[in-house]
Amino acid sequence: MNTATPADTELPVRHESDARGVHRLTLAQPKAFNVLSEAALAELQRQLDAIAGDEGARVLVIAAEGKAFCAGHDLKQMKAHPQLDYYQRLFAQCSKMMLSIQKLPVPVIARVQGLATAAGCQLVAQCDLAVAVDSARFGVNGIDVGLFCATPSVPLVRNMGAKQAMEMLLTGGFISAQEAQQRGLVNHVVPEAELDVAVDRLVNAILTKPRQSVAMGKQLFYQQRELGMEAAYQLAGQSMACNMVLDVAQEGVQAFIEKREPSWRTPRP
Amino acid sequence: MNTATPADTELPVRHESDARGVHRLTLAQPKAFNVLSEAALAELQRQLDAIAGDEGARVLVIAAEGKAFCAGHDLKQMKAHPQLDYYQRLFAQCSKMMLSIQKLPVPVIARVQGLATAAGCQLVAQCDLAVAVDSARFGVNGIDVGLFCATPSVPLVRNMGAKQAMEMLLTGGFISAQEAQQRGLVNHVVPEAELDVAVDRLVNAILTKPRQSVAMGKQLFYQQRELGMEAAYQLAGQSMACNMVLDVAQEGVQAFIEKREPSWRTPRP
Amino acid sequence: MNTATPADTELPVRHESDARGVHRLTLAQPKAFNVLSEAALAELQRQLDAIAGDEGARVLVIAAEGKAFCAGHDLKQMKAHPQLDYYQRLFAQCSKMMLSIQKLPVPVIARVQGLATAAGCQLVAQCDLAVAVDSARFGVNGIDVGLFCATPSVPLVRNMGAKQAMEMLLTGGFISAQEAQQRGLVNHVVPEAELDVAVDRLVNAILTKPRQSVAMGKQLFYQQRELGMEAAYQLAGQSMACNMVLDVAQEGVQAFIEKREPSWRTPRP
Repeated sequence: MNTATPADTELPVRHESDARGVHRLTLAQPKAFNVLSEAALAELQRQLDAIAGDEGARVLVIAAEGKAFCAGHDLKQMKAHPQLDYYQRLFAQCSKMMLSIQKLPVPVIARVQGLATAAGCQLVAQCDLAVAVDSARFGVNGIDVGLFCATPSVPLVRNMGAKQAMEMLLTGGFISAQEAQQRGLVNHVVPEAELDVAVDRLVNAILTKPRQSVAMGKQLFYQQRELGMEAAYQLAGQSMACNMVLDVAQEGVQAFIEKREPSWRTPRP
Repeated sequence: MNTATPADTELPVRHESDARGVHRLTLAQPKAFNVLSEAALAELQRQLDAIAGDEGARVLVIAAEGKAFCAGHDLKQMKAHPQLDYYQRLFAQCSKMMLSIQKLPVPVIARVQGLATAAGCQLVAQCDLAVAVDSARFGVNGIDVGLFCATPSVPLVRNMGAKQAMEMLLTGGFISAQEAQQRGLVNHVVPEAELDVAVDRLVNAILTKPRQSVAMGKQLFYQQRELGMEAAYQLAGQSMACNMVLDVAQEGVQAFIEKREPSWRTPRP
Repeated sequence: MNTATPADTELPVRHESDARGVHRLTLAQPKAFNVLSEAALAELQRQLDAIAGDEGARVLVIAAEGKAFCAGHDLKQMKAHPQLDYYQRLFAQCSKMMLSIQKLPVPVIARVQGLATAAGCQLVAQCDLAVAVDSARFGVNGIDVGLFCATPSVPLVRNMGAKQAMEMLLTGGFISAQEAQQRGLVNHVVPEAELDVAVDRLVNAILTKPRQSVAMGKQLFYQQRELGMEAAYQLAGQSMACNMVLDVAQEGVQAFIEKREPSWRTPRP
């Protein structure tokens, strides 16, 4: 993926999908380090909304071309609009896109190579799962230009310890892929040649599960995490009871009892 | 413990206690992988309620017989009652039992060998402390039969990072005892031959502390964790002041000043 | 720092600052293991309030003299006032001081050698960042005298996993500096000879950032952490927009575009 660095196209995000429902959004402006310009944010939002409405979608991979995964916001564009209301709209647009990842009914996997900085690191933190090349590096370094990475700090501190996040935010320092994994920011770290294999392993595992159960579970997971323990259990119990009466769960449990594959499980590749 | 696999008895949970106030609940249906059937949940609830009312109780160990610690819910029983209200009652019953562990005035230690899956993994996550054999494995794999482990996700994500929990919930994959320890799901991992020694080390440490202080502290710990920082400090300050006027604390502090053992400390075995 | 153990002075806390705005508060009663007596708490509060009002302050280091960083509350003083309202006032005084660290507009770094126990461990947990000597040890062992470390548990469980914190609180056991780092209680662990170098590295990194952006960011960080994800994003977006219209951020971004140092960045030493 890093071998060729194609020229930046007009469309900042490339969308692909296959018959299995595997969607991929690729940040496709490597010469601009895949910055999240207004156009990129708008295109990501448009694509996320489309995938949210696609009942055949099963999983989304967010990838990037070139030497950087994503360098955060487009600083040139930001400097050209030095107005409070512009920045308020910009960060609201970005936050909405980030929250759309969490709200998406299918799991979202970040496929990370190179640098993931500021809102680019936030994008990794916001995904449900993440796989990184062992040479990848992560930072929330807006403070280097005088801009504390406030919105990136939201998912960051929900992925790692407070002191660890604070050091990154205050110093602008980077962490390695290995450190990112130890802290919980990424699930797996692999050599570059094995990146797609490692992503596909997660994709294929998710494809063997029923879409409805995954969608209900993902939504419940993030809702209950924000509640006190008793309220969390009440919500989770309701969700799980509703999941259990679904045909897919009744069939899945029956198949388990009969020691056979459930009818909804397509053979693994 | 793993050497013999006794036949399942009628009573799904065996209760033992000693003169020191050490209680042990043992899941005793190894042939059924110690599933949390309605009967097992009811018996656990009954025993937890009894221990909660026993002022001589000091600590509870939750153990299991056989090759599995606990395989989660009883899927055959669940399949036999395909009604929403049955499942709502079942998960409410299970959640109530799990919350009773947190509310119990004495610390609860999970003693884990073999597999801890779905609600079995939840049981480990819900305990205050956990010790596992190095060959133990942990998974929340309900999604394999189409049932997202919603209620297990409640304590799970309060024991480890969100992405780590999400991968287990979405893929049904297992983690080793070593990974469980690194993530925070268990406190100690030991060879099988040292399991009881490691559990006893925690038990004996707790026995040397005053019951009242431990009970107040455990309750405060979980309450304050759900609050904002300022409210947490207010509650903790009140709890600690009330703890300090107890006879046991006044004596403990006096003994510290006089460089002697407090009168309430029984000699260590 | 550990080589000489000076006699305890009347003033329990020594304050130093330099022209760069680097402040240092040193617990200066090594013979008393730097306990947080009423006088020490009052002096820390007075100094923190002064630093909060000093617009030239940039960073605060909390250090200690002698073989212990801090042994927690003054048990002799506590025993001399066996009244509930005394303890309520004492823990309120201590909690206010701890919260003042979080509310301080400049980052606070704990510089830790020796033992940090009970409220001393709490002090480390409460700081934004922490660096420890490799021989340092950490414990919340009030339970050994019958006093559960309730207020220390507030920042402790916001620095490490629940089971890890619970074991320390229930058993009174200590963890090493290395374990403290793995769990997230400290950022860096170094040999004693490198302690000041490691602290200075963080101090110098913070000095190269604009004070205003750091202050806004620190405040936002702790506020958003207590909120649900959507509310956290709303608050963070507002904070970041307000940060971006500051002169320092406009200049920082312009300097980045022009590939030069921003005017506010003083050359590194």
